[in-house]
Amino acid sequence: MTNFSDILLDRRTIRKYSSEPVDDKLLNELIVMGCRASTTGNMQVYSIIITRDEQKKKDLAPMHFNQKMITEAPVVLTFCADFNRLNKWCFLRKAEPGYDNFLSFMTGAIDALLVAQTVCIAAELKGLGICYLGTTIYNAHKIIDLLKIPRGVVPVTTVTIGWPSEKPEQVERLLLEAVIHKESYRDYTGEDIKKYYKAKEERQDSQQFVNENNKETLAQVFTDVRYKKEDNVYFSKILLQVLKDQGFMEQ
Amino acid sequence: MTNFSDILLDRRTIRKYSSEPVDDKLLNELIVMGCRASTTGNMQVYSIIITRDEQKKKDLAPMHFNQKMITEAPVVLTFCADFNRLNKWCFLRKAEPGYDNFLSFMTGAIDALLVAQTVCIAAELKGLGICYLGTTIYNAHKIIDLLKIPRGVVPVTTVTIGWPSEKPEQVERLLLEAVIHKESYRDYTGEDIKKYYKAKEERQDSQQFVNENNKETLAQVFTDVRYKKEDNVYFSKILLQVLKDQGFMEQ
Repeated sequence: MTNFSDILLDRRTIRKYSSEPVDDKLLNELIVMGCRASTTGNMQVYSIIITRDEQKKKDLAPMHFNQKMITEAPVVLTFCADFNRLNKWCFLRKAEPGYDNFLSFMTGAIDALLVAQTVCIAAELKGLGICYLGTTIYNAHKIIDLLKIPRGVVPVTTVTIGWPSEKPEQVERLLLEAVIHKESYRDYTGEDIKKYYKAKEERQDSQQFVNENNKETLAQVFTDVRYKKEDNVYFSKILLQVLKDQGFMEQ
Repeated sequence: MTNFSDILLDRRTIRKYSSEPVDDKLLNELIVMGCRASTTGNMQVYSIIITRDEQKKKDLAPMHFNQKMITEAPVVLTFCADFNRLNKWCFLRKAEPGYDNFLSFMTGAIDALLVAQTVCIAAELKGLGICYLGTTIYNAHKIIDLLKIPRGVVPVTTVTIGWPSEKPEQVERLLLEAVIHKESYRDYTGEDIKKYYKAKEERQDSQQFVNENNKETLAQVFTDVRYKKEDNVYFSKILLQVLKDQGFMEQ
């Protein structure tokens, strides 16, 4: 068996999957490992919605801007912050839950994300490939409708899982020193920034993005094309409304 | 070597650590593995603040309600959503960042949490023990002051790491069927709730909590003692103010 460190260090996101199925027994094993992740007060304030049905995947696809992993992966997992289950338990046991506020949403979101990442690492250690879809927090309202998600529950991320049928080049990461701070936050000088982003800017595919989009710098590809202010503002409003509608913004 | 599945399944939170140090080489290895976690658009919008200094740990302790892991663990890691670094790069490269909104905060928080959980799993696979401190989102404003965290950055979780000097009993988790939903969210009946919370309610330590706190049910220990509405409301307001102050609530 390959050393786990090598697997973690050599990982890459997998967007193309073979037709081999991921059976329920294996998927359940991964989720049981996921549920061993730390959880606030052992409340387990999360839920995982498993999508395998072809039609359901087709319905989900536009909510993830039609990224093809949704329809091509055998398994799609939607991880949700979930206080609905705990609230129902409280009401049944003569207790008055006070979990209709922003702190509780964050607690559930943290719980859900720790489970998600544990499932993903367990999957990769078993040889499976995964891809995170950041689009869940853009279209949470639509996912809520489609997956019949009740009040007290908000989807926070989505993962596609399958057996890899590609081995893409590993993308670069920033130098370790760019993301760590010792004892207190050491703010970045212009020279630091130039040094830390040099490798990213010099990659051939970065140059290509700049040229294809008629931009002057790689940073402009992020701000003007990939992650635009107008989109961020638009989806921020929707997401805050979702938190309100799902019962997480009471004062 | 023990199988990784066994390690993930057998894990427990470790709150007591031996005096053996965790050296920089090992810690860096763990963080490099953490940085291989998926990240939105490969932006790596997170930072990790490493606390080893005894005085700094003493200063941090009250912000985590004096949980003793902070001062007793050799290493404390504070994981932050961080758009400050990316924003600085954008300004340097004639790009106008649009990341001063709630969606961007959530993007950074998700990034930070996936790194945190990867570091934790890597640590546990190496034999280390970890403990998450959910208190970071309660006292983010104080942590921001102490660790000199600039605008564009918000701490989202804290982890203590060290070599275990205890092996506590493993706590129970809900049945798998309680946290998964197939194809769409299947809401819980009263019977479901009774079934899923039975094991938790019947644990001896649960009974003890109920008696010690003069409560009628275990759920009341959560709502009236451990996670009270008034605290949640109070810390929700503070956390939303932190997001505003750190520049993540522009419209």
